[in-house]
Amino acid sequence: MMRNKNELVKVTVNIFGEEYTIKGTEEPEYIERLAEIVDNQMQELHQKNPSLGISRLAILTALNLADQMGKLQEEYDRLSNQRKKRKDEKSLNPDNRIK
Amino acid sequence: MMRNKNELVKVTVNIFGEEYTIKGTEEPEYIERLAEIVDNQMQELHQKNPSLGISRLAILTALNLADQMGKLQEEYDRLSNQRKKRKDEKSLNPDNRIK
Repeated sequence: MMRNKNELVKVTVNIFGEEYTIKGTEEPEYIERLAEIVDNQMQELHQKNPSLGISRLAILTALNLADQMGKLQEEYDRLSNQRKKRKDEKSLNPDNRIK
Repeated sequence: MMRNKNELVKVTVNIFGEEYTIKGTEEPEYIERLAEIVDNQMQELHQKNPSLGISRLAILTALNLADQMGKLQEEYDRLSNQRKKRKDEKSLNPDNRIK
């Protein structure tokens, strides 16, 4: 059965041994996937630094995610600029130039 | 003075009232910017939910960042696929086709 895209869903996920009920209009599988990403990164960091408390672990995980996003944003901007450049070159093509 | 790109730098940032010393090869300004993103999102979430403890706040912030990254990844894939499609179309151009 198709889900209404604006329908609010409640999904309970487990991150680092604690339950979180997330409300949103996203697909439950998407929310579960996000929780898995956060949980995996926290577990990994915990294994490397077993003495870190949960709040520091979570903040460092958030920092890592912000870093991953920053790098993806750079890649995105690079791709998007290449595209813009090609478009500009096209519009400077002699055939299209105002005479 | 130019900084050696592989040089390990230590940057101390403040996130939600706690200090974190981050070691990395990134520019200090970049690490400070990441800390600012995490701190801002935690402060915003805290204002909406003043009863949430710091670890839950940090985990929810990490989830939000994973969500923002997921959406950026979708955009990136869309742009990258459009580009691939254009390349495929070009290679199917009759002039380039193997005769």
